[in-house]
Amino acid sequence: MAKHLKQYGWEYVVVDIQWSEPDAKTHEYSPFTELCMDEYSRLIPAENRFPSSAGGKGFAPLAEYVHSLGLKFGIHIMRGIPRQAVHRNTPILGSEHTAREVAKTHSICYWNTDMYGVDPEKEGAREYYDSIFKLYAEWGVDFIKCDDIARELPHEESELILLSEALHNCGREMILSLSPGPALLEKAELYKQTSNMWRITDDFWDDWKLLYNMFERCEKWAGHCGAGHWPDADMLPVGAIRQDYSEDNRTAFTYDEEKTMMTLWGIFRSPLMIGAEMTKLDEQTLGLLTNADIIAMNKNARHSHQVWRRNIDGVEVILWVAVCSKGGWYAAVFNAGEKDVDTEIALTDLEIYEPVSAHELWSGETSADRESLSVKIPSHGAAAFLLRAAGRRD
Amino acid sequence: MAKHLKQYGWEYVVVDIQWSEPDAKTHEYSPFTELCMDEYSRLIPAENRFPSSAGGKGFAPLAEYVHSLGLKFGIHIMRGIPRQAVHRNTPILGSEHTAREVAKTHSICYWNTDMYGVDPEKEGAREYYDSIFKLYAEWGVDFIKCDDIARELPHEESELILLSEALHNCGREMILSLSPGPALLEKAELYKQTSNMWRITDDFWDDWKLLYNMFERCEKWAGHCGAGHWPDADMLPVGAIRQDYSEDNRTAFTYDEEKTMMTLWGIFRSPLMIGAEMTKLDEQTLGLLTNADIIAMNKNARHSHQVWRRNIDGVEVILWVAVCSKGGWYAAVFNAGEKDVDTEIALTDLEIYEPVSAHELWSGETSADRESLSVKIPSHGAAAFLLRAAGRRD
Amino acid sequence: MAKHLKQYGWEYVVVDIQWSEPDAKTHEYSPFTELCMDEYSRLIPAENRFPSSAGGKGFAPLAEYVHSLGLKFGIHIMRGIPRQAVHRNTPILGSEHTAREVAKTHSICYWNTDMYGVDPEKEGAREYYDSIFKLYAEWGVDFIKCDDIARELPHEESELILLSEALHNCGREMILSLSPGPALLEKAELYKQTSNMWRITDDFWDDWKLLYNMFERCEKWAGHCGAGHWPDADMLPVGAIRQDYSEDNRTAFTYDEEKTMMTLWGIFRSPLMIGAEMTKLDEQTLGLLTNADIIAMNKNARHSHQVWRRNIDGVEVILWVAVCSKGGWYAAVFNAGEKDVDTEIALTDLEIYEPVSAHELWSGETSADRESLSVKIPSHGAAAFLLRAAGRRD
Amino acid sequence: MAKHLKQYGWEYVVVDIQWSEPDAKTHEYSPFTELCMDEYSRLIPAENRFPSSAGGKGFAPLAEYVHSLGLKFGIHIMRGIPRQAVHRNTPILGSEHTAREVAKTHSICYWNTDMYGVDPEKEGAREYYDSIFKLYAEWGVDFIKCDDIARELPHEESELILLSEALHNCGREMILSLSPGPALLEKAELYKQTSNMWRITDDFWDDWKLLYNMFERCEKWAGHCGAGHWPDADMLPVGAIRQDYSEDNRTAFTYDEEKTMMTLWGIFRSPLMIGAEMTKLDEQTLGLLTNADIIAMNKNARHSHQVWRRNIDGVEVILWVAVCSKGGWYAAVFNAGEKDVDTEIALTDLEIYEPVSAHELWSGETSADRESLSVKIPSHGAAAFLLRAAGRRD
Repeated sequence: MAKHLKQYGWEYVVVDIQWSEPDAKTHEYSPFTELCMDEYSRLIPAENRFPSSAGGKGFAPLAEYVHSLGLKFGIHIMRGIPRQAVHRNTPILGSEHTAREVAKTHSICYWNTDMYGVDPEKEGAREYYDSIFKLYAEWGVDFIKCDDIARELPHEESELILLSEALHNCGREMILSLSPGPALLEKAELYKQTSNMWRITDDFWDDWKLLYNMFERCEKWAGHCGAGHWPDADMLPVGAIRQDYSEDNRTAFTYDEEKTMMTLWGIFRSPLMIGAEMTKLDEQTLGLLTNADIIAMNKNARHSHQVWRRNIDGVEVILWVAVCSKGGWYAAVFNAGEKDVDTEIALTDLEIYEPVSAHELWSGETSADRESLSVKIPSHGAAAFLLRAAGRRD
Repeated sequence: MAKHLKQYGWEYVVVDIQWSEPDAKTHEYSPFTELCMDEYSRLIPAENRFPSSAGGKGFAPLAEYVHSLGLKFGIHIMRGIPRQAVHRNTPILGSEHTAREVAKTHSICYWNTDMYGVDPEKEGAREYYDSIFKLYAEWGVDFIKCDDIARELPHEESELILLSEALHNCGREMILSLSPGPALLEKAELYKQTSNMWRITDDFWDDWKLLYNMFERCEKWAGHCGAGHWPDADMLPVGAIRQDYSEDNRTAFTYDEEKTMMTLWGIFRSPLMIGAEMTKLDEQTLGLLTNADIIAMNKNARHSHQVWRRNIDGVEVILWVAVCSKGGWYAAVFNAGEKDVDTEIALTDLEIYEPVSAHELWSGETSADRESLSVKIPSHGAAAFLLRAAGRRD
Repeated sequence: MAKHLKQYGWEYVVVDIQWSEPDAKTHEYSPFTELCMDEYSRLIPAENRFPSSAGGKGFAPLAEYVHSLGLKFGIHIMRGIPRQAVHRNTPILGSEHTAREVAKTHSICYWNTDMYGVDPEKEGAREYYDSIFKLYAEWGVDFIKCDDIARELPHEESELILLSEALHNCGREMILSLSPGPALLEKAELYKQTSNMWRITDDFWDDWKLLYNMFERCEKWAGHCGAGHWPDADMLPVGAIRQDYSEDNRTAFTYDEEKTMMTLWGIFRSPLMIGAEMTKLDEQTLGLLTNADIIAMNKNARHSHQVWRRNIDGVEVILWVAVCSKGGWYAAVFNAGEKDVDTEIALTDLEIYEPVSAHELWSGETSADRESLSVKIPSHGAAAFLLRAAGRRD
Repeated sequence: MAKHLKQYGWEYVVVDIQWSEPDAKTHEYSPFTELCMDEYSRLIPAENRFPSSAGGKGFAPLAEYVHSLGLKFGIHIMRGIPRQAVHRNTPILGSEHTAREVAKTHSICYWNTDMYGVDPEKEGAREYYDSIFKLYAEWGVDFIKCDDIARELPHEESELILLSEALHNCGREMILSLSPGPALLEKAELYKQTSNMWRITDDFWDDWKLLYNMFERCEKWAGHCGAGHWPDADMLPVGAIRQDYSEDNRTAFTYDEEKTMMTLWGIFRSPLMIGAEMTKLDEQTLGLLTNADIIAMNKNARHSHQVWRRNIDGVEVILWVAVCSKGGWYAAVFNAGEKDVDTEIALTDLEIYEPVSAHELWSGETSADRESLSVKIPSHGAAAFLLRAAGRRD
């Protein structure tokens, strides 16, 4: 990560779910499993799996190491308080109230049995959330992926607000990311005010149907990107990863589909998270992740939105546009159909009424004085352009 | 009970919820409270509250005493297995599997935190249910009120079937009653096949709105009464009981409303359960519960159904009919309006095309050779008639 | 009809839709077609198709002839006023207002273009409905099948009430039948108060799926039969009739399905209407329609309702019961499954706790001293029993 | 119009509904009224109301006059074919089929009785639509406001497509505007492909609730503006117009509300249509309509979208942004609350990370080197800014 990716802007390393479970073995959850916990009802890393945490040091040594590489460190958490703390009725730091007293009686996660929700109405609730973020701050955490919360609105809205306040008052700046999606569009302002990013989809995997579906999600969330808040299209399942855990542990996406994904995430400005076995990145995958033009688009695009979605010669073609903050525009063209397409897209569709130079971000080719975009895109593929007014020099 | 009520047919004495909770004090549940449990994950009576259960005898001594009075004994249970058993991972009698292994991960009761649902797909699930009914059979239980199940269909349908099978295989005959309602009309056949009675309403209390609402519930369930299976309109909150627990602990129902309730439960053939402080039954209340004619109607009515529901002189009047298995018909007339009504109801509305004698069950008055029913009923009151063909002598 | 059926209770002959359309040729409607109309916006029979109506006599001669045979005469009408009257702005008898003024602007039938609805709020509306029923009374009509109304509630509720009042004030007693279904269960009381019968289904044809579906409709409407008001399961498509108008114009029902239909209509007490080419009734069909026991059940059943609907040996079996007003009970057993069934049904399911004699209405066989019903029914077939207490002599 | 408004870009004069009705008197429709029609089932202007149309000249003289003023001419039409043509069965130009044959049987407008829909499946349907647009082209019409269509999707989708094709093949370029709203967001691509503008709201009037509601409509349609297709927020009810037709025929909007409306329509890029008595434009109203900066924003804004909607000191504040095609950005701030607001909005919220000059479009004031926008806005008022990078000279 530090050696190959940091220079392109990749920055955060995040420990995902179940780091406090000593017996975790597969991607499946163990119902009602025992978790490692401190005396204040706070989950801590399982020593057998994170030996550096021994002696009550938690993730501090790991965070320190990550920081030493010039990177940032994040962890996954579940909304709530451990059920085992509730049933054992353990204390809460800084409060006379106990785990049993702050648990919200019928608030559980439906896919994981670790936690009960915390009831913000109860005394001790705020102290519990203060206590966990204080601990994470001590460890040196930079990024919190909070799970079982983004799509739990409006039911768990007050718990989200309490949690967000506790995080922002903990004394260390941390990015707050909310999972899982789909987030609720009608709660967009709340996500913006409480967090930095929120998942707009359930877990995203290497499956064309999910990728196809993402166009609609991105279209409707496009107006809510920017200025520190980001609808999140989820990780990029590239390279050595596969949802079905088959022996050939290689993404089921074709290279064209991977380019479509990078292009859409790029112009939509989704946070970019690598979901891959990092030690097995092949050349092609590394190439995808280190296309500097695509990463620049992700950074410099402004006011992105879908322009149209049309049937051209029996193929569903999707056009996106964005303004480039460095001058000019980005345009992305997607072939969502089952055969190749070869067409011409008028610049007037983008409301550009002057000739442009067009730099295609995947091929690297540039053509001058264009009044339309010639696109020849294979099925499930994409093209991305940086357009500049022809007369312009900057 | 034995002294004053048994002779009228009242038969079952049932211990209601939280008998295994030592700290139970009020009608409110204590979240995540500690329960008394045997070594096989089975709840047992709290000794401090049921001293006769000391020494592992459970409810056997109490059941024996109730039987000695010529009555039958019932208990309340919650669907599922204690959460404390799951988190402690205690054994199941007759199985190598444990509480943790049979719990259904996201099946909880939303108003009480004692239990997790049991997943019938899991090995050990059947043994758990077998083990509890075996215990209840040993105690001498005659009636099981199973809670958190009737309205949990279709989600918990397979758990209901498993539980019902275990009960019917336990070696002792027990009535199975399902709570809470409202039960689902489209599952009527399933209730009939698994149980003896099922609640068609959420908890019923001393409130006219709830009573008024019961007419519609009874109308739609009327076709499903009889032959050992009974839609259940819930307890009769009469005498010394009051939902608001105010100091004057006397039902908020007026006497007319109480008669309406007894008449509706009677002709609809709801199971009759007294919800009252039994040691404080006043004369009037005792009179309601020992009206032999009303109790006979509850027993002998057949094919009961609503006839019509009509506005008469600005008053909503409701007419029910049933065939009497001893000959003749029952008719009940309800004044659901806010003022008194004085009207004549033609026997042809009941499809009776001959003169009858009409015996009114509350006043005890009989009038001969009627071709219509003269009813004069106060607001919220009722009249009930046993009609017999005038010429008939039997 | 008079010769072969009248003696069994068949009574009404009804002229169906489009009798005022001179050009009617097939079962399909001609959009915006010209209709025969008198000077007061009232439709009259097309002379070319009903020559006896010549000279302004309307249906009077035909009604007179039908009456002379000892039968009764009915006609079909559509809710509303002819669109051609509205666009020509013709007068209304007894009013200074015109057709244009009483039409309800956006109330049309969605499957026929003849009429606009009449707006009860408008002056002249009552006079229009009075004028048509006055005309039908003059003709000697006994039965009105009013179309485009039964399932148009609640929108056209006030028009139904106006129309019903006009009919009941017209000076001649007429049966009012409302079409098409499905009628709305929550409006049951309104149907009862305004009409004599109302369709509980869309048009019923010779198709097992429709017949199968009728069990559920009958179950839910069962409590609303009797005392002059009848949920109507629609015509009996038997003998020479076929929905697909194929050359072999013979019902697609098997004989077993026909018996199922007659048995269900019989015990449910649906009005019985023959939907067949009357001049081509074969022996078998005539036998169906003249089974005196089935017709007696239709007349004498009381308090009919479904008892259960169960899977027996992989076959869906349905049990109905009714009290017989002459003594005893009716029971009907249906095989709704795809293979034959051979089973025993305990009388206790019918809440009969004494031995009975059982007379089967299709085979005519009687067996004595039964404590259960032995039924052996082919797929889609039915059995019907009249049960009498064994010891009884009456 | 030509004298005072043309110079600011106001261009089209449109004759609204019921121009073919001789008896039209008020804003209410006369059900089933007689309309002026030519021999080919085509509506023509009522001569008594448009004398220049005498002698079969239709709107040609009026169009010619409007053109002579350097303006463009539009008319309102209803989807479909006149009901009177259908009931009289009149011919269609260029077809052997008749009005009766092309009418769609149950397609009517629910608020106006003039027309039946045309069924694109029927022969003669295309010829009918060709014939009316041919007529309008002959008259010299530049703009068609087609009513009873925009919100009638998906039912009338094929009629919309047929109508659009006929218009685009008529030989004269005409703008196609679809009414009434609310249009369906999921049909956005279809509106774009068939028309130039479509109403996103039911009729808009001088009522704050409607204006308040428009923010949400504009937010969700923002991505679909531009390149010749425009979501339409409806007319501007300013000056001498009032929905309640009270004597004081002056808009119920306050001046602040009018500025809010002009600002929102401006940055959202809604088509601007004046809904006012044109002969009675007072100074203030004229000022609103001739604010050249606002009109320039309506023309030059690109990629407009809402940024946030937030509670600031108890006041709901709404922020919009757009890119200016001439350089810089537009920002609009709205006070949707019930009291005044005085706040500072950071440019980073607009993703502007450099100082700007800010020109406020209503006051005309410019302030230099801003890193935030100071806004002091009365209840229901607005501010609009043209922002330019401080260092920039262009």
